[in-house]
Amino acid sequence: MLHPALLPHGLRDLLPPDAQIEADTVERLMAILGHYGYDRVKPPLVEFESSLLEGPGVAMTHETFRLMDPISHRMIAVRADMTLQIARIATTRLVKAPRPLRLSYAGQVLRVRGSQLRPERQVGQVGAELIGAAAPEADAEVIAVAVEALTAVGVPGLSVDLTLPVLVPVILEALGVESRAAERIRAALDHKDAAAIAEIGGQAAGILGSLMAAAGPADRTLAQIQAIQLPERAAAEVAALAEIVRLIRRAAPDLMLTIDPVENRGFEYHTGVSFTIFARNIRGELGRGGRYIAGGYPAETGYIKREAVEPQPSTGFTLYTDTVLRALVFGPQPPRVFLPHGTEHAVGVEFRADGWITVAGLEPVADTAAEARRLGCSHVLADGKPAEI
Amino acid sequence: MLHPALLPHGLRDLLPPDAQIEADTVERLMAILGHYGYDRVKPPLVEFESSLLEGPGVAMTHETFRLMDPISHRMIAVRADMTLQIARIATTRLVKAPRPLRLSYAGQVLRVRGSQLRPERQVGQVGAELIGAAAPEADAEVIAVAVEALTAVGVPGLSVDLTLPVLVPVILEALGVESRAAERIRAALDHKDAAAIAEIGGQAAGILGSLMAAAGPADRTLAQIQAIQLPERAAAEVAALAEIVRLIRRAAPDLMLTIDPVENRGFEYHTGVSFTIFARNIRGELGRGGRYIAGGYPAETGYIKREAVEPQPSTGFTLYTDTVLRALVFGPQPPRVFLPHGTEHAVGVEFRADGWITVAGLEPVADTAAEARRLGCSHVLADGKPAEI
Repeated sequence: MLHPALLPHGLRDLLPPDAQIEADTVERLMAILGHYGYDRVKPPLVEFESSLLEGPGVAMTHETFRLMDPISHRMIAVRADMTLQIARIATTRLVKAPRPLRLSYAGQVLRVRGSQLRPERQVGQVGAELIGAAAPEADAEVIAVAVEALTAVGVPGLSVDLTLPVLVPVILEALGVESRAAERIRAALDHKDAAAIAEIGGQAAGILGSLMAAAGPADRTLAQIQAIQLPERAAAEVAALAEIVRLIRRAAPDLMLTIDPVENRGFEYHTGVSFTIFARNIRGELGRGGRYIAGGYPAETGYIKREAVEPQPSTGFTLYTDTVLRALVFGPQPPRVFLPHGTEHAVGVEFRADGWITVAGLEPVADTAAEARRLGCSHVLADGKPAEI
Repeated sequence: MLHPALLPHGLRDLLPPDAQIEADTVERLMAILGHYGYDRVKPPLVEFESSLLEGPGVAMTHETFRLMDPISHRMIAVRADMTLQIARIATTRLVKAPRPLRLSYAGQVLRVRGSQLRPERQVGQVGAELIGAAAPEADAEVIAVAVEALTAVGVPGLSVDLTLPVLVPVILEALGVESRAAERIRAALDHKDAAAIAEIGGQAAGILGSLMAAAGPADRTLAQIQAIQLPERAAAEVAALAEIVRLIRRAAPDLMLTIDPVENRGFEYHTGVSFTIFARNIRGELGRGGRYIAGGYPAETGYIKREAVEPQPSTGFTLYTDTVLRALVFGPQPPRVFLPHGTEHAVGVEFRADGWITVAGLEPVADTAAEARRLGCSHVLADGKPAEI
């Protein structure tokens, strides 16, 4: 028989004080999002498989727990990500709400297998989506809001790595590179394999090599990319990126910004400027996001069959609370006073109103100070006053 | 094909402003619990079936979603209730923490089928458990804390209905009523069927009839019960109840208290004073709780086979956020100011610091007031000042 302390791999209990710190951090993050007009929504933990695993959701198929619903006799699934749920709400129940539509969310997601970087199978997500906005101001806003929220809860040393997942495809298409060659090139780029690019890149080899080499601090990288002779559509993407960088700097002048123009891993469904958020010395990403299309997904995903709504240019971000907590420096716990058995109720009311934690003695004890110490209190009530222990 | 707006029965999206109101209410409830020294823990959404569905958990078997975990190759289950998870934490990872141990929690649970009173299949729970405390002060504390928390978030007209689920079994045993007769009597009591009690109650008929008739306001009911000639152990249970009522009155003099001495539905695993919390004119219960044994469950539940810990007298409560929200009167939303395209970042910073919600214009518009109105703002920035719309 299992020992009841044993939990399935990748699942854990949060104990005091971590559970409270996590909850406080989530609400403080959500408060910043709310102040920017991102209104909170709360989708359910489970939905019909057909709405969670289609469109961009197909990418999560192998990560998603599925089960039979005895009520509807259909397959339902536990969400492995919340962004698609928010897009569903925006394009159905809130389809008539004015655009741009700003929505925020916080909740738990479950995954069948954790990743190497994130072995946890239950992850807390906090996010914001800006739906129906194509302007660079929208991209800059979501990045600035994410950075401000993380800064507000006390994450030091933030940096944002920007990328253009559509840049490479646009270039390869403009240069007429046929799809099987494009796939080999894509793989080589994912492995940052300059030699392979030079060898198989064909007429794109020069451009792609220069793009790969340009990765680094935003300003320097932009200057280098803009010096490259790019096909028209690619140049337009770069111009948009440059404008977004300029707008981010206005809101967050001191933010460390880097650009990796050929990165696209994890951004397969993104259609414009995308980003990953890191904190100095913290393993793993604090969050990620970028531009995508809400509603009207490509026909082959099956979504368009039931999506009457127009495709809506959107952007947003998701923060991962486990990584955010790893990046935080925790303050001291509030003072904790032991109230001996029989203390008047009104006394505790006053302490709690002043921000104290009160721990009531439920039975008489000989040594109240010793009992207070045993219960982990910082103070004990003596002669009507809190005495430090 | 399903329309993506369709969710499985009993599951729903919370939209603005409800989702934020729910989150704020949960954190305010948790803050009160925290001030009383109940430290927050956060168990995972899923656990091994064997730890969720044994002991008291067997009662939830048919309400619990179960699935195969491809990692552990064991059955796991989505929690349908959190109390048992807290007891698991208290008797395993926190087995060495000083007693009494005060723990609090907030989270979502999933149920295969909703009940008639609560058709929702995803329910938010907020709760507190006081583990390792047998004194009546413990029972009184958890009831007083639950009532103070609900009052603090603005629930009017609270009442607490107390019951003694062990009273009837103790009486029947003392009077030597054999078990099959006891079952028929239990059923008659559950249906408040006085005629049947008189008919099948045998030597217990008189006592049980009087107990059933005594249900009502606490003081009157206590007086009536104490006038009945009860077997010794039953009389002791009643004396404990009387003491708990006295202690509750000290903390909450104005609380409406009722007693139903023969009620036991939903309290099958409770071992002492239990309670249900209602609010005037609100359908369904806001919460319930009572005394139980954490750890060392009866051998036949299979728990004791792997539970080395001593049985620990405990009490606690669970609040249901959906019912709590139905009982609340919502305040006004914070003011929302539209900041036209190009407004300096610093202007928004100031507004948000003053508690405003700022909605940024992402593109130039001809009529900023009209745009502000379209976006649901209460104010628009004009000449550097917020102008009401």
